[in-house]
Amino acid sequence: MAYEQFANRLADIVGKANVLASEEDRKVYSYDGTSTWTHKPDLVVFPTETEHVEAVLKLANENRIPVTPRGGGTNVSGGSVPIRGGIVLVMTKMNKILSVDAANLSARVQAGVVLMDLQTALAKERLFFPPDPQSFLGATLGGIIAENAGGPVCLKYGVTKQYVLGLKAVLPTGRIVEFGGSTVKNVVGYDLVSLVTGSEGTLAVVTEAVLRLLPLPPARKTIIALFDDLPKSGETVGKILDAGTIPAKIELLDNWVVRSINRITGMGLPEDAAAMLMFECDGTEDVVEHDSRNVIRVCEEVGATQVLVADDPAKAQAYWKARSAGFAAVFGAAPTVLAEDVTVPRTRMAEFIQRVTAICKKADLEVTVIGHAGDGNLHPSVMTDAKDPAHFQKAQRAVDEIIEAAVEFGGVLSGEHGIGLEKQKFMRRTQDPIFIDLMRNIKDIFDPNGILNPGKIWEDRSG
Amino acid sequence: MAYEQFANRLADIVGKANVLASEEDRKVYSYDGTSTWTHKPDLVVFPTETEHVEAVLKLANENRIPVTPRGGGTNVSGGSVPIRGGIVLVMTKMNKILSVDAANLSARVQAGVVLMDLQTALAKERLFFPPDPQSFLGATLGGIIAENAGGPVCLKYGVTKQYVLGLKAVLPTGRIVEFGGSTVKNVVGYDLVSLVTGSEGTLAVVTEAVLRLLPLPPARKTIIALFDDLPKSGETVGKILDAGTIPAKIELLDNWVVRSINRITGMGLPEDAAAMLMFECDGTEDVVEHDSRNVIRVCEEVGATQVLVADDPAKAQAYWKARSAGFAAVFGAAPTVLAEDVTVPRTRMAEFIQRVTAICKKADLEVTVIGHAGDGNLHPSVMTDAKDPAHFQKAQRAVDEIIEAAVEFGGVLSGEHGIGLEKQKFMRRTQDPIFIDLMRNIKDIFDPNGILNPGKIWEDRSG
Repeated sequence: MAYEQFANRLADIVGKANVLASEEDRKVYSYDGTSTWTHKPDLVVFPTETEHVEAVLKLANENRIPVTPRGGGTNVSGGSVPIRGGIVLVMTKMNKILSVDAANLSARVQAGVVLMDLQTALAKERLFFPPDPQSFLGATLGGIIAENAGGPVCLKYGVTKQYVLGLKAVLPTGRIVEFGGSTVKNVVGYDLVSLVTGSEGTLAVVTEAVLRLLPLPPARKTIIALFDDLPKSGETVGKILDAGTIPAKIELLDNWVVRSINRITGMGLPEDAAAMLMFECDGTEDVVEHDSRNVIRVCEEVGATQVLVADDPAKAQAYWKARSAGFAAVFGAAPTVLAEDVTVPRTRMAEFIQRVTAICKKADLEVTVIGHAGDGNLHPSVMTDAKDPAHFQKAQRAVDEIIEAAVEFGGVLSGEHGIGLEKQKFMRRTQDPIFIDLMRNIKDIFDPNGILNPGKIWEDRSG
Repeated sequence: MAYEQFANRLADIVGKANVLASEEDRKVYSYDGTSTWTHKPDLVVFPTETEHVEAVLKLANENRIPVTPRGGGTNVSGGSVPIRGGIVLVMTKMNKILSVDAANLSARVQAGVVLMDLQTALAKERLFFPPDPQSFLGATLGGIIAENAGGPVCLKYGVTKQYVLGLKAVLPTGRIVEFGGSTVKNVVGYDLVSLVTGSEGTLAVVTEAVLRLLPLPPARKTIIALFDDLPKSGETVGKILDAGTIPAKIELLDNWVVRSINRITGMGLPEDAAAMLMFECDGTEDVVEHDSRNVIRVCEEVGATQVLVADDPAKAQAYWKARSAGFAAVFGAAPTVLAEDVTVPRTRMAEFIQRVTAICKKADLEVTVIGHAGDGNLHPSVMTDAKDPAHFQKAQRAVDEIIEAAVEFGGVLSGEHGIGLEKQKFMRRTQDPIFIDLMRNIKDIFDPNGILNPGKIWEDRSG
């Protein structure tokens, strides 16, 4: 079927205004938060109800048209890039919070709800949804579930899959399914909720989710500690957790980011600090006091050169804004920045960062490392220029070495960004072939014609 | 291959002492914690290393011999009953705690480690593994993972699947695999750790697991509240959670169990109490004080007739022992007790219990209900006598009605016990056929010859 004819069939389903096909519109939906991958879809479709998704998938499946589901497009592994063309299914118009049930600590939401909007609504009921990917201003719940998103507070609260109780979804064959339910305890058969969560939109299009919530902590406190060497910061993290205190966040920033914060905010941090840790303790007033005291004590014992405490919310907010600004500056520091996402056991974090630094120094490359130190999830960013092929190749080789080092240190390829297109090439190199076979076979069960988000995660059959 | 010849081949793998075939030994491994199901295996095999499991499964797969993996055999849905005969693979000799990594908050254990032994070892490092199935004295980690076990503290801490970071397992074809890793954040491909967790030993035999741990709370406090009507107890649970306090445990006991506790312990609880709630708050001293105050305040506001606080650990232990004794008495109260395991949204718990009571009253059956009230996971126990067919059938019909009511109330078939053999008949009645198809197809991928724990979860193809 020609795409023009197909567009008419789609318009019959979702309405004419919800099918876009112009060159400009197709370009807008050709990329996500990843810099390296783009591909234009043939058509852009906005469903507004689950039955639309059902009908679109049925039609696409019959005609073997690729469909790539997409929310806010904030993901950073190419997962929502329609690499084979076909339809981009944009879920952002399904953006209703269907119910919030405070006594059951749960909410039912449509897939297109933006995380920030959900948090704002939940805060009124003194609740929150813990995962906090830093794209929260644009990321939608469907994408957060598809990518099993993480974020800073996952140290204390765990990742997305620990907060999804049930899913309404449409299989690529155009069949509506419901997995899980609305209770925390549920052992009825295989856990297909967890299988779909983190499957990067390759198994089903999630249209609604029942989320597990927690009471919003009434108090929080931010603490900053500076260190003159990196191993001390790693030791501090280990000792704090070992002492039984789990802050909500432990963020690590390297010297590059510390200096960048000074430049932007004039905060006057020591320019020679090798590492900075930022902590957020949350809970009741008592808990926050107790945990903060522990954090400060350990930082001082290990030998932090400076410990700063935000005594009020405004100051705390300024600190976190400074962190964001300092890190955002990374992306302006070079024409192309290869921002990585690996996780290593937290005890080997300092050692791993030293390896990263050595790899980049040897190749004469500038690198900066920030990360969620509490759970060993690090984001080394290598600076290069895609328009300078020799330099870019050198940078890509360094990134390869960094990822291989993470695996060598007992870590994983990706902590929270996913594989998508970005890390496919590492799958075969680092994963047991039977793991890839099992995934492919599971994919075939859900999607016999391979129409849903094709070409992702493992290297493609035909590729 | 005849079983005798097969026994010799197995003895070559695991050693002669680790293969049992006598009538008595086969009988010992013919049942689990479920009263209704038994079936003798042909052979009982004890592997002592992963490579043994690999070789046994390879041999069994080539010869199409059923293999049922089993740990302590404490499970209560028939999951470890070898319903098709063949081999029972007893994992209890693989009982080493391989490593405990306090700074990474993780441990690597063999599948046959008993939960209580793990907790004892972890307590020395001020750590714990949160899930607390009440079979902890005998249940092994492999079984806990296979059943995605719950327990009282899952209200605050979540269930087993939230604490499994990685698995070493053997596929039914005799292939060793490793899924996941040792980090909390890990988004490398489909989440096969969660798929195997809770698959009731049908997809793979887990031989080792990397578990996520938490710091052991330094303080805890037990509170008991008695109510003269059931809805008040339900309201109390909702209000406590709504106020932002999540105790580690909220256990509900009905009048039957309250009277049983009095009879056994002479505690002098009010004989006419319709319901009793038992709370445990845990955390730092401050947190426990704070949470306990909230719990007591809400209980009094809603109108508890009596609130008892255990001021010291000995008294708290006595209270929890009384609860166990009171509940254990249920199983001595009738020749056969049909102990159920359903979960309903916690806001509808009181209403559900009233329905259970009405169902049993109408059929002139004695019933008692206890449960993990915080997460709506209830265990109604219907008293009957399997040797009195008319009465037993009546009781089974009541149980059917109870389960159907749970589903009608927005709950699930099983909160923590699993489907096994016990709840197969409800799968088709309550589940979407495509869910069963997807499970079967996934099973076929992992186990093309259907040798691993056959006949479980969904009604069998041939059945």
